[in-house]
Amino acid sequence: MSLLLCAQVDNLGQWQSELATAFPGETIQVWPEVPDPAAVRIALVAKPPAGALASLPNLELICSLWAGVDRLLADPTLPRQIPLTRLIDPQLTASMVESVLLHVLTAHRQVPRYRLQQARAEWTQLDQPGAADRTIGILGFGELGRACAEALLPLGFRVLGWGRSARTHPQVECAHGATGLARVLARADILLCLLPNTNETRGLLDAARLATLPAGATVINVGRGAAIDDAALLAALDAGRIETAILDVFQTEPLPPGHRYWRHERVWVYPHVAAETDARSAARTVADTVRRFRTGARLPERVDSGRGY
Amino acid sequence: MSLLLCAQVDNLGQWQSELATAFPGETIQVWPEVPDPAAVRIALVAKPPAGALASLPNLELICSLWAGVDRLLADPTLPRQIPLTRLIDPQLTASMVESVLLHVLTAHRQVPRYRLQQARAEWTQLDQPGAADRTIGILGFGELGRACAEALLPLGFRVLGWGRSARTHPQVECAHGATGLARVLARADILLCLLPNTNETRGLLDAARLATLPAGATVINVGRGAAIDDAALLAALDAGRIETAILDVFQTEPLPPGHRYWRHERVWVYPHVAAETDARSAARTVADTVRRFRTGARLPERVDSGRGY
Repeated sequence: MSLLLCAQVDNLGQWQSELATAFPGETIQVWPEVPDPAAVRIALVAKPPAGALASLPNLELICSLWAGVDRLLADPTLPRQIPLTRLIDPQLTASMVESVLLHVLTAHRQVPRYRLQQARAEWTQLDQPGAADRTIGILGFGELGRACAEALLPLGFRVLGWGRSARTHPQVECAHGATGLARVLARADILLCLLPNTNETRGLLDAARLATLPAGATVINVGRGAAIDDAALLAALDAGRIETAILDVFQTEPLPPGHRYWRHERVWVYPHVAAETDARSAARTVADTVRRFRTGARLPERVDSGRGY
Repeated sequence: MSLLLCAQVDNLGQWQSELATAFPGETIQVWPEVPDPAAVRIALVAKPPAGALASLPNLELICSLWAGVDRLLADPTLPRQIPLTRLIDPQLTASMVESVLLHVLTAHRQVPRYRLQQARAEWTQLDQPGAADRTIGILGFGELGRACAEALLPLGFRVLGWGRSARTHPQVECAHGATGLARVLARADILLCLLPNTNETRGLLDAARLATLPAGATVINVGRGAAIDDAALLAALDAGRIETAILDVFQTEPLPPGHRYWRHERVWVYPHVAAETDARSAARTVADTVRRFRTGARLPERVDSGRGY
């Protein structure tokens, strides 16, 4: 009986060592060297190559070492009868909260405009609204969305949260469904997209919905690139209806060199770095998931493949 | 008996209206129309012209509508025997905390490098240290410094504080004096300068002291421009010893169009906007100061002209 680490990542050695610490005394086979496929009961995966999981006859659990599982679910060779978990890790949440605070404050304090002023050596103090005059709309109000809201609220921002299912939060106006989405979009001076890539979120922010944002809004995407219709976003930016876009995720990654996002002066491109998995913290978290799986305990991190996350 | 508003600001009308609300039933003369100088007991000032305060025979109190009083103290016509207060305003503190979070996260998450990568359409994920691996050194550990530290600590940063006099804080390693300064500089991956402009702070960050920062440090200045030796900072940036400078304040403001700071690709210039006074909040705060002055209560906001703030 053994674990399999199957990850196409730059820091494979670090993962091996952190997992060895987190699973003391257990054998960990590391793809592509899998001398005993029949022994593998649990696969710990990050970007596994197509087919790698289908060849394990006694597999009982697949644990994603990343939060997003859209790439896994899109693989037709994924053995769908095996339970799959995603990473819900405190370190990853902390990293996302940092990025969201950074991007929201960048929009709120008008950094993109000050950067353009600097390029012209222009000294102009812009009118600065207070945080209480800004409404942040968060699309995707699960664990990450709540953590982001709770970091933004103490600064005085008004926060709205929208998600697939009904949620409540003492200080956040929560909405769901199509009507709820319209209500959030109409008020979001800063729209923060944390949505996973699912059948329901793909292309959600299309021309019609982007047109309902308040004039001069900022769009921040740290979820998945598929949620945004890129042509519609660029048109809204060009028309000046949307002031700035801060994008960490894209339909195609790496963002192709010729893409207009790279050159648009009011688009800030980040190379998918909003919340990187920390191997040490993730190894501990995934060891806890495996421990609970083995004792038959509840797995709130289990992916609902119909829902898509 | 009356108040005088003496302010060379763009939004004088807003100040008049907010002060009228904050001081109900009181006469407020507004410079340059001062029909009855002898009636003025209290002057509320922002950038008053030289000599304007010296011509008031019955003046008892001068209240700065701004936090910084270096410009006032540098005016030889300032009647120095009259008590002077500076603004310690919750709205101004909140605005400074926003700016400091923004600038520290900009440095921590390597935004300047990602912006340069975007200019080259380059998709490279940089190694990202955690907040716990970053030490923030705060120079100037009064009300604003403490508030900034308390916003940074929950994100996991290590925070060091340095000031003129000995202070303590349960979660911040506090230092003072020359030895303390050397200790803070040697460890500050991100140096946050909140210093006022005084005889002791002028030129404090000279070539010798900047050279003691850790390699690749970021310097953030939201205090006063006079604290930094600009030529020394530019030399350290050019040599690559300092990675980035984020500057909101300068020796000469507006920053002259030909200044090298404008064109340096690792210097981010802001036009002195880190913490603008909010007229409504400041009017209430200054009304409270005046009320306490009239009842003979303690004025912690009183400026010590020897100390310079």
